[in-house]
Amino acid sequence: MSSYNHQTAPTQFTEAGGIRFAYRRFGKNGGVPLLFFMHFTGTMDHWDPALTDGFAQGREVILFNNAGVSNSSGEVPTSIEEMAQHAATLIDSLGIKKLDVLGFSMGGLIAQQLTIDRPDHVRKLILVGTGPRSGEGMAALTPEAQEIFGAKYDPADELWLRVFFTPSEQSQAAGRRFLERQRARRENRDPLPNEKVAPAQLAALEKWGAPRENPYAYLKKITQPTLVVNGSNDVTVYTVNSFILQQNLPNAQLILYPDSNHGSQYQYPELFVEHATLFLNA
Amino acid sequence: MSSYNHQTAPTQFTEAGGIRFAYRRFGKNGGVPLLFFMHFTGTMDHWDPALTDGFAQGREVILFNNAGVSNSSGEVPTSIEEMAQHAATLIDSLGIKKLDVLGFSMGGLIAQQLTIDRPDHVRKLILVGTGPRSGEGMAALTPEAQEIFGAKYDPADELWLRVFFTPSEQSQAAGRRFLERQRARRENRDPLPNEKVAPAQLAALEKWGAPRENPYAYLKKITQPTLVVNGSNDVTVYTVNSFILQQNLPNAQLILYPDSNHGSQYQYPELFVEHATLFLNA
Repeated sequence: MSSYNHQTAPTQFTEAGGIRFAYRRFGKNGGVPLLFFMHFTGTMDHWDPALTDGFAQGREVILFNNAGVSNSSGEVPTSIEEMAQHAATLIDSLGIKKLDVLGFSMGGLIAQQLTIDRPDHVRKLILVGTGPRSGEGMAALTPEAQEIFGAKYDPADELWLRVFFTPSEQSQAAGRRFLERQRARRENRDPLPNEKVAPAQLAALEKWGAPRENPYAYLKKITQPTLVVNGSNDVTVYTVNSFILQQNLPNAQLILYPDSNHGSQYQYPELFVEHATLFLNA
Repeated sequence: MSSYNHQTAPTQFTEAGGIRFAYRRFGKNGGVPLLFFMHFTGTMDHWDPALTDGFAQGREVILFNNAGVSNSSGEVPTSIEEMAQHAATLIDSLGIKKLDVLGFSMGGLIAQQLTIDRPDHVRKLILVGTGPRSGEGMAALTPEAQEIFGAKYDPADELWLRVFFTPSEQSQAAGRRFLERQRARRENRDPLPNEKVAPAQLAALEKWGAPRENPYAYLKKITQPTLVVNGSNDVTVYTVNSFILQQNLPNAQLILYPDSNHGSQYQYPELFVEHATLFLNA
């Protein structure tokens, strides 16, 4: 067991393929580590300590910033495929031969692509608040997401109350507890991403989401056990996309939580960690 | 803790509303009991001991045969509403003021209706392999179910290998383990239902499934925490109906299992009991 946790894990750096990647690792050593793939415009600090520390009880947890994000060098790629290639170089650089992956939203797209590119490396896959290529409403930001991301918030991180939670009193209260947890790391936080990150990531999202023929056929290549999780009312990546993933992946379990939006795993963090741990340990 | 289990629990009888109901109860006394609602043409013996004994570790489990089925007297009603009324009289007769309900397939329809009729009695609801009023493909037996139920099997209970499991090797192997468990009660088994049961139950199913305006609006009345469970490829009550239930119920969690058909809870009995116990204990 590493003595570090979400709050205290130092940011480390590794050089791979010309990129200097920032990462943090903590938790119980010796098994298959769990690599986290972050959402649109997020850094390592955007993860919920209730999840990272929750998983760290039973396995090693690795967070990282992909190329061009925050304290990782390089340019943000404008395709999910290049982001997955960067992640693969990071894994090699860390000497990881077998891993589980957890991808949230955009991170779920990268996690899918990495699994296709590196089938022998990825053991199990957790896809949260995400969707397939050419999923419903994924060719551009949804109208709801455009409104939510276009509005102003003070403090700025209250944006996430609207992105991740429903308007219900109960969901918003869970959101405020999430924000408190997320803000709790005081030292050595990541710099916020610069202004080039959002446009590049958006271009990558739109390419992934663009209409194409037979769009879900590629999912048959992902034969790893997969857990698909979402909220009942995700307005950023519509919930039906999680159903589509489960129906088209060869070996997927689906869990949808009640009264929840894009960040259902942050609304029910203990339950999510229990469900995901049952899945990872099976 | 009652000393009985699925194999040894005696069949008891209680008189209510002119019906003599057969039932069995066992498990841990003192909390909220879990009442099981059986599928089309099933009796108490059709439940999987891995489920009933699994739940009985933590709560009291009650099985019963509804009116006209096997050793319960009376006529099988030709509507789900009347079946729910019979279940309500049974609950009153047993003096139960608060209960959790688990309904499988047709049993899930009765469980929904009972919850609407007796909102103060039902605490939580588990709906397995079932659907809403006027669900997709629910106006009649699906073509797949017609073929499966129309074929001959030797021994006859191998019917359930096709109803509950997918054609995959892994699912069929799980199905054979299920049949062994289901056959293990040797003494005091229920008589098989007579020839009047299937037509009456089918009439009830078709009324429930018939098209109507705004068919899912009634689900808003079910405010109890609900767990909806199904297989990835249910060909008897199409899997999409579980998604529709979750999307329209005010407070529902959905779990879909991989490579599974109508009886996913029998394919993954330990995992299902773990998931359902997490839900019931939350």
